[in-house]
Amino acid sequence: MRIGVLCSGGDSPGMNAAIRGAVLRGVEVNGFEMIGFMDGWRGFFEGDFIELDRLAVRGISPLGGVILGTSRVPPFPDGNATPAALQAVITRMAELGIDGFLLIGGNGTQTVAELLTRAGVPAIGLPKTIDNDLGGTDYTFGFDTAVSIAAEAIDRLRTTGESHRRCMVLEVMGRDAGWISLHAGMAGGAQVMLIPEFPESIEQISEWVLSVRDRGRSSLVVVAEGFKLEGVAHATVRDGLDGFGRPRLGGVADVLAPLIEQHTGIETRATVLGHVQRGGLPTAFDRVLATRTGIAAADAARDGQWGTMAGLTGDQITMVPLAEAVGQLKTVPAARYDEVRLNFG
Amino acid sequence: MRIGVLCSGGDSPGMNAAIRGAVLRGVEVNGFEMIGFMDGWRGFFEGDFIELDRLAVRGISPLGGVILGTSRVPPFPDGNATPAALQAVITRMAELGIDGFLLIGGNGTQTVAELLTRAGVPAIGLPKTIDNDLGGTDYTFGFDTAVSIAAEAIDRLRTTGESHRRCMVLEVMGRDAGWISLHAGMAGGAQVMLIPEFPESIEQISEWVLSVRDRGRSSLVVVAEGFKLEGVAHATVRDGLDGFGRPRLGGVADVLAPLIEQHTGIETRATVLGHVQRGGLPTAFDRVLATRTGIAAADAARDGQWGTMAGLTGDQITMVPLAEAVGQLKTVPAARYDEVRLNFG
Amino acid sequence: MRIGVLCSGGDSPGMNAAIRGAVLRGVEVNGFEMIGFMDGWRGFFEGDFIELDRLAVRGISPLGGVILGTSRVPPFPDGNATPAALQAVITRMAELGIDGFLLIGGNGTQTVAELLTRAGVPAIGLPKTIDNDLGGTDYTFGFDTAVSIAAEAIDRLRTTGESHRRCMVLEVMGRDAGWISLHAGMAGGAQVMLIPEFPESIEQISEWVLSVRDRGRSSLVVVAEGFKLEGVAHATVRDGLDGFGRPRLGGVADVLAPLIEQHTGIETRATVLGHVQRGGLPTAFDRVLATRTGIAAADAARDGQWGTMAGLTGDQITMVPLAEAVGQLKTVPAARYDEVRLNFG
Amino acid sequence: MRIGVLCSGGDSPGMNAAIRGAVLRGVEVNGFEMIGFMDGWRGFFEGDFIELDRLAVRGISPLGGVILGTSRVPPFPDGNATPAALQAVITRMAELGIDGFLLIGGNGTQTVAELLTRAGVPAIGLPKTIDNDLGGTDYTFGFDTAVSIAAEAIDRLRTTGESHRRCMVLEVMGRDAGWISLHAGMAGGAQVMLIPEFPESIEQISEWVLSVRDRGRSSLVVVAEGFKLEGVAHATVRDGLDGFGRPRLGGVADVLAPLIEQHTGIETRATVLGHVQRGGLPTAFDRVLATRTGIAAADAARDGQWGTMAGLTGDQITMVPLAEAVGQLKTVPAARYDEVRLNFG
Repeated sequence: MRIGVLCSGGDSPGMNAAIRGAVLRGVEVNGFEMIGFMDGWRGFFEGDFIELDRLAVRGISPLGGVILGTSRVPPFPDGNATPAALQAVITRMAELGIDGFLLIGGNGTQTVAELLTRAGVPAIGLPKTIDNDLGGTDYTFGFDTAVSIAAEAIDRLRTTGESHRRCMVLEVMGRDAGWISLHAGMAGGAQVMLIPEFPESIEQISEWVLSVRDRGRSSLVVVAEGFKLEGVAHATVRDGLDGFGRPRLGGVADVLAPLIEQHTGIETRATVLGHVQRGGLPTAFDRVLATRTGIAAADAARDGQWGTMAGLTGDQITMVPLAEAVGQLKTVPAARYDEVRLNFG
Repeated sequence: MRIGVLCSGGDSPGMNAAIRGAVLRGVEVNGFEMIGFMDGWRGFFEGDFIELDRLAVRGISPLGGVILGTSRVPPFPDGNATPAALQAVITRMAELGIDGFLLIGGNGTQTVAELLTRAGVPAIGLPKTIDNDLGGTDYTFGFDTAVSIAAEAIDRLRTTGESHRRCMVLEVMGRDAGWISLHAGMAGGAQVMLIPEFPESIEQISEWVLSVRDRGRSSLVVVAEGFKLEGVAHATVRDGLDGFGRPRLGGVADVLAPLIEQHTGIETRATVLGHVQRGGLPTAFDRVLATRTGIAAADAARDGQWGTMAGLTGDQITMVPLAEAVGQLKTVPAARYDEVRLNFG
Repeated sequence: MRIGVLCSGGDSPGMNAAIRGAVLRGVEVNGFEMIGFMDGWRGFFEGDFIELDRLAVRGISPLGGVILGTSRVPPFPDGNATPAALQAVITRMAELGIDGFLLIGGNGTQTVAELLTRAGVPAIGLPKTIDNDLGGTDYTFGFDTAVSIAAEAIDRLRTTGESHRRCMVLEVMGRDAGWISLHAGMAGGAQVMLIPEFPESIEQISEWVLSVRDRGRSSLVVVAEGFKLEGVAHATVRDGLDGFGRPRLGGVADVLAPLIEQHTGIETRATVLGHVQRGGLPTAFDRVLATRTGIAAADAARDGQWGTMAGLTGDQITMVPLAEAVGQLKTVPAARYDEVRLNFG
Repeated sequence: MRIGVLCSGGDSPGMNAAIRGAVLRGVEVNGFEMIGFMDGWRGFFEGDFIELDRLAVRGISPLGGVILGTSRVPPFPDGNATPAALQAVITRMAELGIDGFLLIGGNGTQTVAELLTRAGVPAIGLPKTIDNDLGGTDYTFGFDTAVSIAAEAIDRLRTTGESHRRCMVLEVMGRDAGWISLHAGMAGGAQVMLIPEFPESIEQISEWVLSVRDRGRSSLVVVAEGFKLEGVAHATVRDGLDGFGRPRLGGVADVLAPLIEQHTGIETRATVLGHVQRGGLPTAFDRVLATRTGIAAADAARDGQWGTMAGLTGDQITMVPLAEAVGQLKTVPAARYDEVRLNFG
């Protein structure tokens, strides 16, 4: 059996460990041939790939990024999975002698995997995203590393905040789901955690910050990039344009900090953590999860379990139907958000 | 309601976060009075305790160790839960005005919690142990930190091993269960992982080490302190006496390394990681898990769910009957051990 | 002898270790009484201070921030060291029974220390600043921690940059001196390091970035906040106002990244590291340097060496005249900047 | 000019950064050809080397260990620099077309470099050793990383020690010089620091431990592997044989801990940190120092400054005569040891 591996979407710590797990199991134990396409679907269509064997994956488990590269190039022109577009994938597979795919990616990638499967293309999903917003798995690999980095930033900002009696606002990733903000905030003991799922008003936020001050402390506010301030029209997407068509500088934290200062009279500073969250040394948790995901995916390919994704269920990796995983974004439920309000005022 | 909190057994990163979670929820939301006994059961019997309120738990979440101290002092003289001994606990509770216990500990402590519950003493368990050998929960807090520290040690030892073409043996904790060895080894890409559940012979280990050498690499062997070398009679418990009644120095790694060197001719060095694994800054994962455990335990007390333990089930905290949790040690199943053999020879 | 300690200016990792070193030596060995003023000169004038003894400094060495707080409140109204303002300090000292000061701070604070000394106020300086721009010492404490944090950010950004074939721009602190940019960039293997001392044009920067691309790599550009792009008029000071009087969002990296993308056609992303650089756990280097600085300052007070600053000279702490230390900012000399150009195109 | 690079002695974090610095400067700027011998002198005599160019050193700066390998194979048979042995080196150089050496190593290696120089072999030294016991330089690269790792271990051990009211003994490296013990102990706030240069009696150590207990704290004792307990005859060298010719298990900490427990009645635990101290990710400080050392060495070769070593003097790298550097071990002076006694009883 000849298996093609590719990564799509943003990078996420643990991708190399997943590839290593899949290759050591697939090639050494299951007797596959395996190849890895460079830069996602670009490599597939352009025939740009490397042989994946034991030597190719030596020592890559602790490395951030991904040896294959990744890109957001879609497998279908204009993103439309027309019959012609699907047939083009099948034809290309035949040319390359590929029997099936291991697709490492987040929601977009797994949605593609599900489309391919329904069109008869054998595919298995390996869920990765630092945002943790994918169904069918307790956690996605990359998330724990992102949370760790954000929690360490909170630990650092807290001390400078306390020393200067300032309110510190930290913006973390999370366009649609607040998992990083929630977990990093809880780990770091942030007093206010703001997430896309639950808009709050500047008045409410300021009340929390003042209440923390009244207890003799300095506030640490952690805010997901996709958080929406109630009653204020503003673009929340970073790296886009502002209302005047100019390149927007900074993030939601840069908007929020002066508002908090204005409403509370407390000196307030913003930090936008940015891409630092998605690179570098993965945590041990992510390396283990990713390695086990790779092993399970290689075994699922051997057993013909196409159309599934290797999800974490408790302390087991189980193969779940792709359709289940990609139905909808996994967002923070009200119960979890309420859980952290205990830290508030 | 007045709740007593105590910690028993070895310390485990996350204990402070668990106390903070329980107190912020118990006192601020549920309206409890809470006190914390110093050094486990010693503090209970001697009336040595502190008031637990918001101020007492301020900023403790990232701190290693535990503000209350912990000890292995048992609640029953000689460890026998005689009717008289149980009555003594009940009498002391009445004197202190305690309505129930939150008991933070590992297998031994949760077994005590179950005994107390059966004797009519209201108790709720918070599972902590770096060994992860407790049932009723996917993971115990402290485990992720221990694995992280051990994985970082592997990352470090690997580079010195490769530079000198040496075999490096790292001993990690785990008397009865090999979870730390398994996860740290997988995270660090160790070639050989030895655990208490599966004895191996020196011949088999040497064969693996030689096979790694034949592939042009240097071996990293991670061994749990409770690993038993097949066919060799030797005490595996550290800090005890050797066969001659003398204080034993070093650990199983110190025994294993010269044997590997003798059988393979490869220069081999041992490192015993020891207590470093159980102290210091908890990982974000452990802080979140511990905080949520504390919150859930405080709510369970409010709801009268005595006789339960706050376990992690997937991404939820659920209250499981203590009897289920303490039935037997959770050890590494054969399927998980086989999973990592893929790295071997 | 009764000594007052105060911190002034931005916080810098190691301040707690310096206080601990000075107190353990001053109180326990030299027999001083010591007090610490809260929030810098504010605490001095308002009589807000704490007793500094062994218990007060227990375990503070690894803590970020500073237990006394710090502020930018000047000791002289409007910053003018008029005879009246100086007399006010002397009078207040007498009221508080203070025989001399240990002043922990950067360039501004040490300049004040020198002024006070010339006016007859006994003062000794302890140099701290993450910017390392102070004369009279090889390094200031806080600098090594800031460099470590920035270097780790580079390590992380590099992997995500390589995976996506992007140019990553990291902005680090340094308004007037490029030490953090230079050292972190060298440690992290950045290809381009931009510092306030040496303006470069966007054309030159783009040429470097393209040359890196031609070698098959992705560029990592590290830029100090005070870097000036040749031929472009723009405010470089963060947190101020832009040319239109509006609060400025983002930093120089947010300005630079789109320009690089425009000139090279390479997707480019900016990260502004911000306050994360100045808080949290100090490195071992900074803790040792700060502790030794504190010890030396306490001994200098005992010996009456007022008007000096405890500087690092090789592996020794030596007392240097304050006048020498504060003469001018210590900036990156051309030889050091040339040294790193070796990494360029 | 054709330059041979080799590493000798134990590995030390920063060696890769030094090679990268020397190669980027030597090949790209100075126009050298450079080759690197594998496993030290073995590679030289066996003709086992690799070409060192920009590609060969790409991205190696943050990696622990050393890409060339290192060994303790001496350049002279039996370690005797006989005229015949020196002539063999010169002959071999001619065969390989080598004009000079860059020798990366500690005291032993730099002594060899000095011998070679006197015999007319052009050699330049790059000082590396985690022990910091080399003259002619303020610090050797590798030392800062070792201290950081040991200080982090102290931070971790302290919390578990305090939680259990135990005395924790940490053994760190340092056969002949106590620098790691001294700096890590000061950084971590150890109460007792024991170093080879200053023997102490078990009675004195116990008095310190008891005095710490009387202040309500738990002791952290850091001991260098070469520390000698006054009045007790015992081998201090690890990995050797004990007095009965049997392989010795454990280190001096394993000897010391039971003695402390016996003399004080305080439960005491030993940890031997071992090889973990010398591997893995170098600190930013060591990467910068090593890179600058490599650059300076490449320029010294260009300028014909043979017989020198690239030492750190304040914030400059200066070329010092090898004879000065290797005259005698740099040990901890009494003044520095006294400085830390302030933490004692």
